[in-house]
Amino acid sequence: MTGKDSRWQIVFQPSGRRGQVKAGTTVLEASRELGAEIETICGEKRVCGKCKVRVESGFFERYGIESNPAHTSPFTQEETKHVSVRERAQGYRLGCVARIQRHLVVFVPEESRTGKQVIRKAATQRAIDLNPAVRLLYLELEEPTLFDPLGDLDRLRRRLSTEHGIGHLSIDYHALLELPGALRQGGWKVTLALWQDIEIVAVWPGRVDSCYGLAVDIGTTTVAAYLCRLGNGEVVAADSMMNPQMAMGEDVMSRITYAMSHPDGGLERMRRALVEGLNKLVRSITGSVKLTPRDILEVALVGNTAMHHILLGIDPQHLGVSPFIPAVHGPLDIKARDLGLHVHPAANAHILPIEAGFVGADNVGVLIAEEPYNQDEIVLVVDIGTNGELVLGNRHRLLATSCATGPALEGAHIKSGMRAAPGAIERVRIAPQTYEVDYRVIPREGKSQGRRAVKPRGLCGSGIIDGVAELYRAGVIERSGRFRKDLDCPRLVSVEGQPEFVIARAQESAIGRDITISQGDVRNVQLAKAALYAGARMLMDKLGVEKVDRVVLAGAFGSYIGTREALVLGLFPDCPLNRIHAVGNAAGDGARIALLNRHKRREAEDVARRVEYVELTLEPDFQKHFVEAMHIPHMKDSFPSLQDILSG
Amino acid sequence: MTGKDSRWQIVFQPSGRRGQVKAGTTVLEASRELGAEIETICGEKRVCGKCKVRVESGFFERYGIESNPAHTSPFTQEETKHVSVRERAQGYRLGCVARIQRHLVVFVPEESRTGKQVIRKAATQRAIDLNPAVRLLYLELEEPTLFDPLGDLDRLRRRLSTEHGIGHLSIDYHALLELPGALRQGGWKVTLALWQDIEIVAVWPGRVDSCYGLAVDIGTTTVAAYLCRLGNGEVVAADSMMNPQMAMGEDVMSRITYAMSHPDGGLERMRRALVEGLNKLVRSITGSVKLTPRDILEVALVGNTAMHHILLGIDPQHLGVSPFIPAVHGPLDIKARDLGLHVHPAANAHILPIEAGFVGADNVGVLIAEEPYNQDEIVLVVDIGTNGELVLGNRHRLLATSCATGPALEGAHIKSGMRAAPGAIERVRIAPQTYEVDYRVIPREGKSQGRRAVKPRGLCGSGIIDGVAELYRAGVIERSGRFRKDLDCPRLVSVEGQPEFVIARAQESAIGRDITISQGDVRNVQLAKAALYAGARMLMDKLGVEKVDRVVLAGAFGSYIGTREALVLGLFPDCPLNRIHAVGNAAGDGARIALLNRHKRREAEDVARRVEYVELTLEPDFQKHFVEAMHIPHMKDSFPSLQDILSG
Repeated sequence: MTGKDSRWQIVFQPSGRRGQVKAGTTVLEASRELGAEIETICGEKRVCGKCKVRVESGFFERYGIESNPAHTSPFTQEETKHVSVRERAQGYRLGCVARIQRHLVVFVPEESRTGKQVIRKAATQRAIDLNPAVRLLYLELEEPTLFDPLGDLDRLRRRLSTEHGIGHLSIDYHALLELPGALRQGGWKVTLALWQDIEIVAVWPGRVDSCYGLAVDIGTTTVAAYLCRLGNGEVVAADSMMNPQMAMGEDVMSRITYAMSHPDGGLERMRRALVEGLNKLVRSITGSVKLTPRDILEVALVGNTAMHHILLGIDPQHLGVSPFIPAVHGPLDIKARDLGLHVHPAANAHILPIEAGFVGADNVGVLIAEEPYNQDEIVLVVDIGTNGELVLGNRHRLLATSCATGPALEGAHIKSGMRAAPGAIERVRIAPQTYEVDYRVIPREGKSQGRRAVKPRGLCGSGIIDGVAELYRAGVIERSGRFRKDLDCPRLVSVEGQPEFVIARAQESAIGRDITISQGDVRNVQLAKAALYAGARMLMDKLGVEKVDRVVLAGAFGSYIGTREALVLGLFPDCPLNRIHAVGNAAGDGARIALLNRHKRREAEDVARRVEYVELTLEPDFQKHFVEAMHIPHMKDSFPSLQDILSG
Repeated sequence: MTGKDSRWQIVFQPSGRRGQVKAGTTVLEASRELGAEIETICGEKRVCGKCKVRVESGFFERYGIESNPAHTSPFTQEETKHVSVRERAQGYRLGCVARIQRHLVVFVPEESRTGKQVIRKAATQRAIDLNPAVRLLYLELEEPTLFDPLGDLDRLRRRLSTEHGIGHLSIDYHALLELPGALRQGGWKVTLALWQDIEIVAVWPGRVDSCYGLAVDIGTTTVAAYLCRLGNGEVVAADSMMNPQMAMGEDVMSRITYAMSHPDGGLERMRRALVEGLNKLVRSITGSVKLTPRDILEVALVGNTAMHHILLGIDPQHLGVSPFIPAVHGPLDIKARDLGLHVHPAANAHILPIEAGFVGADNVGVLIAEEPYNQDEIVLVVDIGTNGELVLGNRHRLLATSCATGPALEGAHIKSGMRAAPGAIERVRIAPQTYEVDYRVIPREGKSQGRRAVKPRGLCGSGIIDGVAELYRAGVIERSGRFRKDLDCPRLVSVEGQPEFVIARAQESAIGRDITISQGDVRNVQLAKAALYAGARMLMDKLGVEKVDRVVLAGAFGSYIGTREALVLGLFPDCPLNRIHAVGNAAGDGARIALLNRHKRREAEDVARRVEYVELTLEPDFQKHFVEAMHIPHMKDSFPSLQDILSG
């Protein structure tokens, strides 16, 4: 029972997930197998420390097993960075390091759990011209006779050619299989679904009035789907899920790393996790309106370049190293079945083009939604994620770049950082005199939006930006980002000789520890905002403009940061507040537009090719802009209170 | 152990095949499950009696089971037509009727076994202009840099467009997956396989010189495959197999019946049997020349309309009833993977067009091989199978028809008939005075061709035609087909009051019974030849010609019947002997031509559309021609002896 092939019982608490795993499996791998999700940000590179868990000791009667820290592989040097001596004595380990060597009961502390991400990707109201890739056509054919014995498909083609002027029509193999039955069942009256007027993708007996398509925005964190009626563009259902690849790493780079460090099928595991997730989403979204997956005749997909490649099963490794070359820039039309998507078997999946190694199809989606290429004024499109994606220009010229903001603005690499999940502090106010703190926590889904209805677990991106801006406004930090040394502030504590500001005290938090902003956190935010700001400045230099007429904040993050705070911190160049627009999930809107209007697909292809990508590392001025942008720029006007924001 | 879900042990002798089957399974179904092939001609309609087997009695120590005729369902009225009282006492049953209700040992008599068909579908020597659908292209690309970061596919397209004038090139999904690795492994030098200059179907690192395609002729009985090098047209390997659907019925109509009478997946079973057989054939044919299935980049397929539909998984039922409408007439290009074919995952399968309900893609193959549409002289193309397919005409006009010859010319519905398998008598000579009989038997594969090396089991099609022609020549039958009553001939026997002529006596046969030609057999041959002859006459009337300049006998059967005997019997209208050409497997040649020349695909499409189908049942004169053609027409010259034929 101690051989290499032994299997051991493992139980995760408090979820109660359990099962048998092979000896030698890491606790993190086991959690993935058993569906007990443990947080990981670094893609199992053993550096983030987010997957800390506690191995319990004792005999667990309920499960009939003895658990003990000695039932795992020996404690390693690497773990000492994240697990204190005291924690070690309590049985804490890193889930990605500790290997299972006998039965275990493992406690996953609240801060190590993968919360269900708050989904903020609702469909936006936009007027979209209708010209979908799939349209319906009702036909009444002559019944064949011995004198006119033409085959079913040829009969259909004859009619389409003579009466509808549609020649050279191909048919998907699966639609061909439907054809003879549909013709006879419908008494030679059928409805066809035509794709781009060049391929028959479905046939039904008699008259059919509605057909459906699915627009999907595959985010690194969140996947949003919109089920649309192709005939009128109506969004009949919207749904979203966490990207199931989160278990293989939280950001784009850690997914790429995961694929590279698991050459034995890591890429395929990620691809399959995503596709299975999508199929589940398809079932639930269609089921919610009494449709079936087979009712979906066309799919339009956007995603960043890594998501794009992983969905296709293309090795993303070349995206991660200079010169960052994707396998394909242009748009793709692939049979959904070839991607493993369970929709109508003849449906096509349209994957929008990508612009450059780090500026993906999601950004193209934003562009066709916002159309800066149709404007006279200079527009700056800011899409903040792990990378900040920037597009600057107007009808005459468009420049794009990608800035390595790091994940700080998403709450990662931040001491008390977390994703925008329930329990995350998303807004912060600090009173300048008393340093009293007011904050707002993201509530659990379905719970009332009441303030502090949920105890805080950490700070998400917008909370950190708010927090740093407020620390500056309240005089706690200097323009340089340094904590003031002379301050008499009860919330300032010193940890390992470095100052930290307590946003929420241990007793009011859900994790039993202070939630703080440290000097290192401020530095990370400064690095991120300097990268973003300097990137925008570089684009302005390149374009030869001194000012930006309009700023478009795309993405969920852009909708939730305070635009004032963003300006205060200097996330992007000056622009009047009323010329800054948060446009929500514009990438998802772009997918929807591509689903509903095939001319916009052509437009997407054109703009993806037209946008000039600026590689910042090749620009000598970038470092200068970057260093200059490190300081917190200026204080323009007074801030509204959190109450003001909440009430207005 | 007697419930509905019981499983019983069944052993087939002499093959020794055995296994467990569910109670209620018929012996025939069990034989299929266990790979012990039992003959069936009627598609399990319980009428052909070919699946007669003997249930053994006793305890079989070797298998540890007791077997007994009582272990099957009760003997039925239907069986009495085929199983005599004496046979019944010995345990004989029809395999398609008897259901298994306990352990069984079943003996399959030689005449009930599915012999391995003699494969006579070698590739013919033909000069084919080369212009294959897939061609190779070697490219050397510029390595990408930060200044030229174009994606892999876009980089390829840029080169193809600027230097080769090939624009708008799509890529198969699976080729896209190969692309990034191939480019980097080959140091940005790659070879592409282009399909029709519109789709990339494969990419290899570096320079590749050869690529391959497969031409397949799916016959009702035999499937022949030719592996060709696309660059030079060379047939690098040829192989064939029995169509695995033989177990579900021997002819086209019984396959259609099988699909209709097994709505629970009968069609899918036939389709899968064929596709699995094709995949096995692909493995063996590629393995024989040290290639792999992945080396096949294009497939061209011909087959009669029913084979065509079943391969595609299209319900063939409408082919079997008036007005005999196929699902599609035109050619199809379908991804081989969608058909379940295991060749290169991006390979396309080109399926040739069909002409009419009963004139299939195999006949189109014959046409593009023989090109009557390019001739001045009037050509009659005769393809004899279960249906006789006829095409008559020249460059100005082509007429086609299908005559219900019945299966007599293939050896079915003939008392001692069998397919052209080892043991079949294929040539017959009868001495006019002595009525001494000389015959030739198809040898076992690999065995010497020595006369009578194999004991005869029955008569195949060419043997029956020879036999009937010889019976007439020897004065045993009259012009009307009736046996002479006044004849003193020791080989004439009377069975149930009807005369039969003994070709091989019981003691010299492998089945322990006389092999004979009965009055009924002569009638069946007359019906078949009358149908064929009358069909040809009808076409001549329609075309307004009095004579045929040339006759082309296509198909394996056409290569093996004696052209003299065929003329004597009046299988087709008069034509000088030296203007009758047996062209072998012209359908397979047509598949090869379509594989190697894409312009010929267009030609195939044109001719399939141009050929005018003549529905004989609609022609008032057909009956007249038919009745006139029933007689054996005339005796022109003396016949060579079998020795003469064998020696020359």
